Amino acid sequence: MLYADTIAALATPPGVGGVGIIRVSGPHSLAIAQAVIKPRRKGVWRSYQMRYGHVLDEQGHVVDEVLAVFFKGPRSFTGEDILEIHCHGGPLPLRRTLSLALAHGARLANPGEFSLRAFANGRIDLAQAEATLDVIEAQTNLGLSLALDQLGGGLSRDLRSLREQLMYPLAYVTALTDFPEDDVPSEELLPPLQQAHSLLRQLLAGADQGVVVREGARAALVGRPNAGKSSLMNALLRTERAIVTAIPGTTRDTLEETANLGGIPVVLIDTAGITETDDVVERIGVERSRAALSKADLVLLLIDGSQPLSVEDLAIAQLTHERPTILIATKADLGQHADLTPLSQAHPALRGSIAISSQAGTGLDYLGTMVAEQLLGGLPLSDARLVTNPRHRDALRRANAALEQAIQGFQEGRPVDLIAIDLHEAIASLGEITGETVEHDLLNLIFSRFCIGK
Amino acid sequence: MLYADTIAALATPPGVGGVGIIRVSGPHSLAIAQAVIKPRRKGVWRSYQMRYGHVLDEQGHVVDEVLAVFFKGPRSFTGEDILEIHCHGGPLPLRRTLSLALAHGARLANPGEFSLRAFANGRIDLAQAEATLDVIEAQTNLGLSLALDQLGGGLSRDLRSLREQLMYPLAYVTALTDFPEDDVPSEELLPPLQQAHSLLRQLLAGADQGVVVREGARAALVGRPNAGKSSLMNALLRTERAIVTAIPGTTRDTLEETANLGGIPVVLIDTAGITETDDVVERIGVERSRAALSKADLVLLLIDGSQPLSVEDLAIAQLTHERPTILIATKADLGQHADLTPLSQAHPALRGSIAISSQAGTGLDYLGTMVAEQLLGGLPLSDARLVTNPRHRDALRRANAALEQAIQGFQEGRPVDLIAIDLHEAIASLGEITGETVEHDLLNLIFSRFCIGK
Repeated sequence: MLYADTIAALATPPGVGGVGIIRVSGPHSLAIAQAVIKPRRKGVWRSYQMRYGHVLDEQGHVVDEVLAVFFKGPRSFTGEDILEIHCHGGPLPLRRTLSLALAHGARLANPGEFSLRAFANGRIDLAQAEATLDVIEAQTNLGLSLALDQLGGGLSRDLRSLREQLMYPLAYVTALTDFPEDDVPSEELLPPLQQAHSLLRQLLAGADQGVVVREGARAALVGRPNAGKSSLMNALLRTERAIVTAIPGTTRDTLEETANLGGIPVVLIDTAGITETDDVVERIGVERSRAALSKADLVLLLIDGSQPLSVEDLAIAQLTHERPTILIATKADLGQHADLTPLSQAHPALRGSIAISSQAGTGLDYLGTMVAEQLLGGLPLSDARLVTNPRHRDALRRANAALEQAIQGFQEGRPVDLIAIDLHEAIASLGEITGETVEHDLLNLIFSRFCIGK
Repeated sequence: MLYADTIAALATPPGVGGVGIIRVSGPHSLAIAQAVIKPRRKGVWRSYQMRYGHVLDEQGHVVDEVLAVFFKGPRSFTGEDILEIHCHGGPLPLRRTLSLALAHGARLANPGEFSLRAFANGRIDLAQAEATLDVIEAQTNLGLSLALDQLGGGLSRDLRSLREQLMYPLAYVTALTDFPEDDVPSEELLPPLQQAHSLLRQLLAGADQGVVVREGARAALVGRPNAGKSSLMNALLRTERAIVTAIPGTTRDTLEETANLGGIPVVLIDTAGITETDDVVERIGVERSRAALSKADLVLLLIDGSQPLSVEDLAIAQLTHERPTILIATKADLGQHADLTPLSQAHPALRGSIAISSQAGTGLDYLGTMVAEQLLGGLPLSDARLVTNPRHRDALRRANAALEQAIQGFQEGRPVDLIAIDLHEAIASLGEITGETVEHDLLNLIFSRFCIGK
């Protein structure tokens, strides 16, 4: 055990519910169980065994009727002794039970501190610890499944095998630095490095997609008043594939909601509340559209397909010329009367076009797929392992650059001590992902993003 | 087992946290455990034994990494087989795990349905079931402790003993109805009835206090601008004895917050935002003060004690004449310059007066005690068992009335069949509290107040 102190916190979401859990981890867990809980049936605290009883305060007054379970370390989440007290899910019994745990030798846990201990005690590596947060915050099934793969150690295994492939060449060249007159047997050392490089490049190739799946992306809906923006937004949010965020993020000028499009959480930005006026510029909301565009990864340009193209349509289309755009002819159920050819031919960043009907629901699935594919870099989703965390992608990039240096060094016959530095750098960068080589400050930064009790 | 179907719901508060629990109860619980969870270690599901494993969907994909525990009925909360799946506390893993439980034979639980089953299966009586909700919603330590006593069966035992005391007399007079010529041995039957009556009156005497502890009360702060209303409100909310409600209830004209005063959750109503004007009536906010007064159980009349009494003070005091009022001289740290005698002598409903300083914190504790005592009917808190639920108080009143009828019947030598009716009514009313005699509709009404998953 690395830690001498014991931490405690509320492990369930704050608020009111049937059950709430106070979680305690560290060497005092068992003593706290014995001091605070009076089980109905006598006997010792056996690991993984639920017990019914009461939490009593110092005066012997009942604080709550509870279930409690003790996990004997190291076979526990943190690797330490853990006590979980399952209280009634009300603020007062939970707060008082937590206070009692603190009064009997625990201190309040920092955000993510249980996971930090699980990492520090070797129960999970850093990539797995980060994945627990991704599981909790996952917004789409695709995101959840990538997070669970990472939590299960999928990425960690790939990285371990990568590091191992680099270890032998590093050991070899390090040994050679003492015998500078010897030849470097590049024909023996290069193949494993090139193989590692190929795997690394595969991981990097999927990483841009993975990061989009995890972090989501933003799409702006623009179009003249009555082009069908709100209807499309509502239709996309209503689909069975699930509205993920229940809390709409509204800014003064735009309405934002998150929809699940092809497995990607896409924040849809609608330019709301356009002014009624005779001035075209004002009527189409040039300033608001510009603001929405500036925040978006992709533009959905809506044209009322049931009407001939108007001056406003062309003016708005002009605004989108510098952004990747999907052209959407709306109201397909009313017939196609707009000739979009002049508009689409003039657009330098058009990525595709589609006719839809929000009313009839036609074209929406395919639009979702188009949006997702566009956000994934114009490619279908890679079936390789996807790195989803920007921090991991950054470390992979540095590992890749160092490895390419090393390979080039072999090919150009550079001094072995320089090659050793590059290889060492590549291995260290990979180790940052799983936490073998990581700064204390970075650890703190990573775990401070967790909620308390995780 | 009364129920053939299996119910499932989220048992922890909604939102994001370290852990969230899906709870399943009913005959399919074990089958759902076997279908949905793949434990890491093989073996059977033993009752009260936590297991580590994964939730898998129909395609065998991992939905979450979980802990799970099975409770074999009848030794479980509902008396039925229960399965608890402890997921990561994120919306998506919880939603998908719940969906899997539903797909494997459970249906979504109604609000309070787990507690309803615990009641219907005889694990707890109705008063205990209602107490679980009071534990969750308790706002003060006093309220929590009364709820826990009721949950532990304290009230139920009293009521059982009351009912038993009435049973023998009822049986006797019922038997006598077949032999109308026999004499009623009132000297034998009356003492147990009078003893029961005395216990019933004790319970009723404490009930008004108990209901205030559970439901709280409302106090209006009135006084002219700058009399110190906001300072006092903030000082009362800031005390260590805990701000209970984090959500301030604001209406258009008044600001409301809940403070814990002497163990009672007291909603403090402040008349905010009085207009700057030359008109006295408008300046002291007559209309707003009246509105606040009309909603309050108690008035806190604030006078700036550091200033001589003003016309406005007297005008506002006048408004409070019809309400129980505590007179508060504020700003005691600046010296006492107001002579409150004329004001307090003229007040027909004054319950007490006190000098305080919100700035220095003096007098606040005693003010809290005064407020609490006033709300508890001018008495210190009874040390008898406190009935806290208005529904219970109502049933006790009806039982008491019927019992008094019966006693009078004995004393006046009324026909035994009439006495039997009264005794039966008294017993039935008591049974409504614990649920021995209760209408289906009332049950539904009671349990629909519970959260889902409880």
